[in-house]
Amino acid sequence: MTDVLQLLRNHRSIRKFTTEPIGDAMLQSIVEAGQAASTSSYIQAVSVVRVRQAKQRSAFAELAGGQPYIETAAEFLVFCADLHRNRNRVEAASDNHADYSWVEQFTAATVDVALFAQNVVIAAESLGLGCCYIGGIRNAPDRVTELLELPELVYPVFGLCLGYPDQNPDTKPRLPVASVLHQDRYLSPQVHKELLDQYDTNVKEYYIKRTKGKLSFTWSEQMAKQVQNQKRPFMESYLKKQGFMIK
Amino acid sequence: MTDVLQLLRNHRSIRKFTTEPIGDAMLQSIVEAGQAASTSSYIQAVSVVRVRQAKQRSAFAELAGGQPYIETAAEFLVFCADLHRNRNRVEAASDNHADYSWVEQFTAATVDVALFAQNVVIAAESLGLGCCYIGGIRNAPDRVTELLELPELVYPVFGLCLGYPDQNPDTKPRLPVASVLHQDRYLSPQVHKELLDQYDTNVKEYYIKRTKGKLSFTWSEQMAKQVQNQKRPFMESYLKKQGFMIK
Repeated sequence: MTDVLQLLRNHRSIRKFTTEPIGDAMLQSIVEAGQAASTSSYIQAVSVVRVRQAKQRSAFAELAGGQPYIETAAEFLVFCADLHRNRNRVEAASDNHADYSWVEQFTAATVDVALFAQNVVIAAESLGLGCCYIGGIRNAPDRVTELLELPELVYPVFGLCLGYPDQNPDTKPRLPVASVLHQDRYLSPQVHKELLDQYDTNVKEYYIKRTKGKLSFTWSEQMAKQVQNQKRPFMESYLKKQGFMIK
Repeated sequence: MTDVLQLLRNHRSIRKFTTEPIGDAMLQSIVEAGQAASTSSYIQAVSVVRVRQAKQRSAFAELAGGQPYIETAAEFLVFCADLHRNRNRVEAASDNHADYSWVEQFTAATVDVALFAQNVVIAAESLGLGCCYIGGIRNAPDRVTELLELPELVYPVFGLCLGYPDQNPDTKPRLPVASVLHQDRYLSPQVHKELLDQYDTNVKEYYIKRTKGKLSFTWSEQMAKQVQNQKRPFMESYLKKQGFMIK
């Protein structure tokens, strides 16, 4: 079944979609594939909100920093870490207060969501769909919480646009495997540096070739640009307000 | 390509493996499939440590709470969130201090790791291998950090056992799709409750049937047992020591 490896390696984010809808049965089937992913101690800490209304879609496109494909994709799903369900059931079953505010639980729930979502993406791509994760919804977690009426102990991790692709972008060069797959212990600084120097050269060549010389930067330069500003400084207080990571 | 949906749905954790090894080429190919997953703003915040030495394997089996398959699996990989690589490169490229201590960055890196790992699992299963995530390595993150010589801004998210399956367990019943896939807004408490009451009955029946009556508990009862104790209360201080979530 090496076509699966091929499918995985061919992944690129799709940001332009045809108008063809996704049937309810197909969507359900894709979400079920997501549910089949592993879950930490069976907590199943995932909720997915399917956003259909045009007004809601516009609000999301805007809050995510102007990503118009959120409006045009056949489906837009918001993946949430959800420990609300668990707490509710535990408190109803046992009459005890159930504590879900540890950093550990935040981490496990976030991992659960990502494992689930990646299965959704693979399932969707295997059916000819294209996808694009939207981390930009974390620009305005309060607003998302309000729009989707998320209760305590639920937070939006990322969105996902889904639809039939109307573009065919390149895959982007990844880090050398040797710099990612360490043997027995973390790679020595010198070896790591050599591998990344080479990678920087490759990324620069990729951009020059792709844009006919208009763009030319290394991976390290891109990373440097990214950290010039504060990174969503409101996330910690937002998460605490939702009941996460209080301890 | 509906065999991909079938593959995803057939997932179960495998905890018993044959002695057949996994070739280096296959492992590399699986890890490359992991790298092809989406990454938040191209940060590629993932490192995977392949643990080969028997002594190390025993240490992991023990610290994870006695999981002997960590010793016997063909491969044991530790998936780490890694912003150390990014910070090093940024600081070398720009001579500026680069701040990776926001909760947002911790979240994005953790998501990156899980997306990557889930691709690894799908790739492995498509090649006839079985896998088991080991969240239990977070029992002793300090010890893992020491064993693998992890630098600042790297933390072990979970382990993964990989090998050819020597067992054929059932898949476990998942939450009803209707309780996970919300339409436009978070499900109303009443509807949610009805769905989960039914699910609890199903899970109980599943255990009774599977264990010929020896075990009999609902999902909610299982969740209640889980939260009786503190959940790895040291995680927050450990993560801060590693340079995460300081802000």
